[in-house]
Amino acid sequence: MTQLKVTDLTTIKRGPKRASFDQQAAWALIDQALMCHVAQIVEGSGGESQVVVTPTCHWRDGDYLYWHGHRRARNLASDQPVSINICALEGLVMARSAFHHSINYRSLTVFGTPEWIEDEEHKAQQLQRFVDKVSPGRWQQLRPMTHQELAATGVVRIALDEVSLKCRSGGPNDDDADADWPVWAGVVHRYCHWEPEQDSQQGMAHQSPNVRQELI
Amino acid sequence: MTQLKVTDLTTIKRGPKRASFDQQAAWALIDQALMCHVAQIVEGSGGESQVVVTPTCHWRDGDYLYWHGHRRARNLASDQPVSINICALEGLVMARSAFHHSINYRSLTVFGTPEWIEDEEHKAQQLQRFVDKVSPGRWQQLRPMTHQELAATGVVRIALDEVSLKCRSGGPNDDDADADWPVWAGVVHRYCHWEPEQDSQQGMAHQSPNVRQELI
Repeated sequence: MTQLKVTDLTTIKRGPKRASFDQQAAWALIDQALMCHVAQIVEGSGGESQVVVTPTCHWRDGDYLYWHGHRRARNLASDQPVSINICALEGLVMARSAFHHSINYRSLTVFGTPEWIEDEEHKAQQLQRFVDKVSPGRWQQLRPMTHQELAATGVVRIALDEVSLKCRSGGPNDDDADADWPVWAGVVHRYCHWEPEQDSQQGMAHQSPNVRQELI
Repeated sequence: MTQLKVTDLTTIKRGPKRASFDQQAAWALIDQALMCHVAQIVEGSGGESQVVVTPTCHWRDGDYLYWHGHRRARNLASDQPVSINICALEGLVMARSAFHHSINYRSLTVFGTPEWIEDEEHKAQQLQRFVDKVSPGRWQQLRPMTHQELAATGVVRIALDEVSLKCRSGGPNDDDADADWPVWAGVVHRYCHWEPEQDSQQGMAHQSPNVRQELI
């Protein structure tokens, strides 16, 4: 099992027993989740440091996390450190006391400095990876991207060097004294699913898209 | 309709036509979502500014957004500006070109400085609000919180003064020239639901919990 590297930034101080160092589990969460949150420090209107967090879609290629947007989008700023979180909410942990209520989740945080992708071919390859992450095989069915569209699209990546993963699963950890407290206790699981609309303009003429069912 | 205030920080620069100023829609998203992402600037080990983003659960009381955690949790630091995002992913917008693919979402960003809740009664009231947001009426069924538990729990709030809301809905905006491109186009909707486990230790003895079905 490849282990995630532990650094100053990725050491989990609160709830360390929920830390996981399994790189495979970390990569699986990245690949399953569509969205992440990118936090960065920007300059405020008065010249002061201002923190901003924005949601975006991401994908992975090897040991790099990629995201994209309008080439002038703020969260594509490269050469500035960011922190990115990907979180999957999996269930409500209903205990017998408010205090022991919790949630089941997988949460991954990345630290690093994004790097801008200049090369058009690299960009197109990565955008294909993104489309096919969501809907395997779709890229080949689409009207090909134009040079102009590629130029309007910014793509950045961050090395998955400093990554921390924290997970919770299982039922409530009630106090022993509360075992007979008369209330339902256990996990309420959360499920997501994807369903193509039936009334899309062109829907009937073509086969429904192949959306990856593990996507969350 | 109460309008969200527009400030320097909450002006949407990228995709301004997706901005919404409807306070009711903003509050509805906050109330429906369980989780948010809190971004803050912390001091790194070398004394430099480091950005960190963490997921947490939130709730709302009037014009305040609340969250909680272990009283020493980093994301409960008060008196430091934060940026918080709440995002609901609602569908995949499948166009006829990669370029016009998009997602349907509601995304809300808050800016401000959290304030620590000291008063025990205020804290308990708010924790009740949180439990009952998830499962209406549950607080009254639980073993009451102890003073020690309340003391171990930190609660902060932020005024919902600087809030921006951005939404996308509807089908793909394809180029006219692509109208007949032979691929399925339309929206793949995302649905979430909650399901209590059937094998919880105490599950059979008590009625299943009342989980708010709009919760996402």
